[in-house]
Amino acid sequence: MPLIVQKYGGTSVADVNCIKNVAQRVKATRDQGNSVIVVVSARSGVTNELINRAKSLNAKPDDREMDMLMSVGEQETIALLSIALHSLGVPAVSRTGAQAGILTDNTHTRARIISISGGDIKEQLKAGNVVIVAGFQGSSGDGHITTFGRGGSDLTAIALAGALNADSCQILTDVDGVYTADPRVVSSARKIPEINYEEMLELASSGFKVMQSRAVEFAQKYSIPFEVRSSFNQQPGTIVKEEVTMLEGLMVTGAALDRNQSRITVSDIPDQPGTAAKVFKALSDKDIIVDMIVQNIGRAGIANISFTVSRDDAERAELAVRQCMTEKGSDDFISITNIAKISVVGVGMRSQPGAAARMFEALAQQSINIIMISTSEIKISVAIEPEKADEALRTVHTAFNLG
Amino acid sequence: MPLIVQKYGGTSVADVNCIKNVAQRVKATRDQGNSVIVVVSARSGVTNELINRAKSLNAKPDDREMDMLMSVGEQETIALLSIALHSLGVPAVSRTGAQAGILTDNTHTRARIISISGGDIKEQLKAGNVVIVAGFQGSSGDGHITTFGRGGSDLTAIALAGALNADSCQILTDVDGVYTADPRVVSSARKIPEINYEEMLELASSGFKVMQSRAVEFAQKYSIPFEVRSSFNQQPGTIVKEEVTMLEGLMVTGAALDRNQSRITVSDIPDQPGTAAKVFKALSDKDIIVDMIVQNIGRAGIANISFTVSRDDAERAELAVRQCMTEKGSDDFISITNIAKISVVGVGMRSQPGAAARMFEALAQQSINIIMISTSEIKISVAIEPEKADEALRTVHTAFNLG
Repeated sequence: MPLIVQKYGGTSVADVNCIKNVAQRVKATRDQGNSVIVVVSARSGVTNELINRAKSLNAKPDDREMDMLMSVGEQETIALLSIALHSLGVPAVSRTGAQAGILTDNTHTRARIISISGGDIKEQLKAGNVVIVAGFQGSSGDGHITTFGRGGSDLTAIALAGALNADSCQILTDVDGVYTADPRVVSSARKIPEINYEEMLELASSGFKVMQSRAVEFAQKYSIPFEVRSSFNQQPGTIVKEEVTMLEGLMVTGAALDRNQSRITVSDIPDQPGTAAKVFKALSDKDIIVDMIVQNIGRAGIANISFTVSRDDAERAELAVRQCMTEKGSDDFISITNIAKISVVGVGMRSQPGAAARMFEALAQQSINIIMISTSEIKISVAIEPEKADEALRTVHTAFNLG
Repeated sequence: MPLIVQKYGGTSVADVNCIKNVAQRVKATRDQGNSVIVVVSARSGVTNELINRAKSLNAKPDDREMDMLMSVGEQETIALLSIALHSLGVPAVSRTGAQAGILTDNTHTRARIISISGGDIKEQLKAGNVVIVAGFQGSSGDGHITTFGRGGSDLTAIALAGALNADSCQILTDVDGVYTADPRVVSSARKIPEINYEEMLELASSGFKVMQSRAVEFAQKYSIPFEVRSSFNQQPGTIVKEEVTMLEGLMVTGAALDRNQSRITVSDIPDQPGTAAKVFKALSDKDIIVDMIVQNIGRAGIANISFTVSRDDAERAELAVRQCMTEKGSDDFISITNIAKISVVGVGMRSQPGAAARMFEALAQQSINIIMISTSEIKISVAIEPEKADEALRTVHTAFNLG
């Protein structure tokens, strides 16, 4: 009997009616002759509610206690879904992360999976039960509850699918797959039937919000294919795997837009070895993720460095840089500008040159100014003015014939 | 260093402000030079909310899944209280029932404690930590979460105090002790400084709602003294233990009122062996607890049986009796009447006769009619009209000089 792992996110189990809907879908999947493992998140809003309660008691709550606290969200959902399945006559049992044998290190709130025994899941499946596993959580070797950080339920689903050799792993969410561009911005955007891990990862880091990179990286590392599809309809979604059917001549698979970026420019710093290192060490010490970096040399011996960060991190980044540059006399050597980032992603770039040229040309024709550029083997990203973001995405989408 | 176990109920941890208040009290107890274990319930309302959610999915939710579900209430509170204590500079760690080594049988939703290892609690106390344990829950031998039923957090506190040889166990609640009668009804009621287990048990079964009998029975069985006191002030409460200082001549310790009773009368049944057995077997099969029972013989060969049950059970009880008496032709052989129950409790009754006479006389002088009577070695209960309940309680309270 084929084994399917289905993961339902917080919006899919938001209230009892949503949970009834998920129960119906799980029943249908089982009725088609499959063994089913279901991974669920906390009801949407619950995790934030718990975090707010904790923060109103303590501005910097302890990580171990936050894991104890946040893990209750998923524990509630697994029990409710199990109870809902029973009322449809479907035998089901719930398992916490610990009970599913998900062993992690003890880095609370961002634990890493060490191994998955599966607990008694195989036994339960053999007995005909649907097994419902709490996403986002595991247990450290010494028996403490750990969590994986935001989006961790995807990781649970993919890791379980890998550990138990599932025939299919479905990430059910509120979008119905991966598109060539955000369909709310680009009306001609198409759903991509298949995409490989690298492209998915580049899209995830480029503003495509459906999945956290971490779950995709895990899937890539252990070659676990999965499908992103909607929990609200029955359409096939996008399959993410190692080898995808290449369409001859397709250079770019998709384009992504991230509106939520800031550029920080540090001016008039001495152009000497170690200066850039000092700046980025200060940022990494504060766990601030830097995306694009550009360094210009201006007048003799003086350099400017610009880099982009998530807009949420911009103020903290500015402060970190100021603190490591105390020798600067004046205050006005740092500026923050809001920007948007447009990226095109495609493994086809490896074999076909000219993607960058085509992208820059298309943007130039629309008089969209490129502020910064960053490239990887399969991605080209440019920073532009936020006001031009939608137009730029449509332009690039057309330029690469993605519609 | 003395070890104190404190238990805070749901109303004491209802919201973040209440939790801050509890954290302050725990800190004060620790600052006085004590080691502290804190047992907490779910925030008041949370357990009912979870039950309602489950019942809206399934009229008869599975017991194992209900335990998985309900245990999250306490798990939330232990994490929040720990986080609140940290913000006061008090080192604290939370432990679920399973982590505290509370091993139970697998009777889900009403599990019985088999043993308590304490997990790493002693180690944590030695390291200077306050240890916060989730009340109401444990773990079965095969690793499933179990709960003890309503009021189960008291049981957790008393059982932990016994297992870890605590010097004191405080049940902190919204009343400040056990009174000679409900002070809202009897203005001259006094707080009882000490009471023994048997009296406490008789009061618990007589309408005194502070604690479930089960926790008191456990305390009695293992001779674990505890104190019932208020979480909202610093007054000493009532100490419950085996041997209490007897006041010479005190026949009755307290009087209790239960307004929430119904009398069911089954008329005209054949006066032959097995009839009463059949009726009460039918009730016990439905888990209906019967309190007082009276049987009268009327005309030759015909008997009437009256018994009292909690008003919530009255309809189910009537149905159970009808179903076991199908041979009765007519429908009107059963009647339900609302009644109130007044009880006086005191170990002094064992050595001093005349308590019943004094109680009946006092009620007669006030023209309060006694409908039914039931007695144990240390308790006398009478059923009366609900309209006379308050007056009857005051009358009895005065008759035994309890003011």
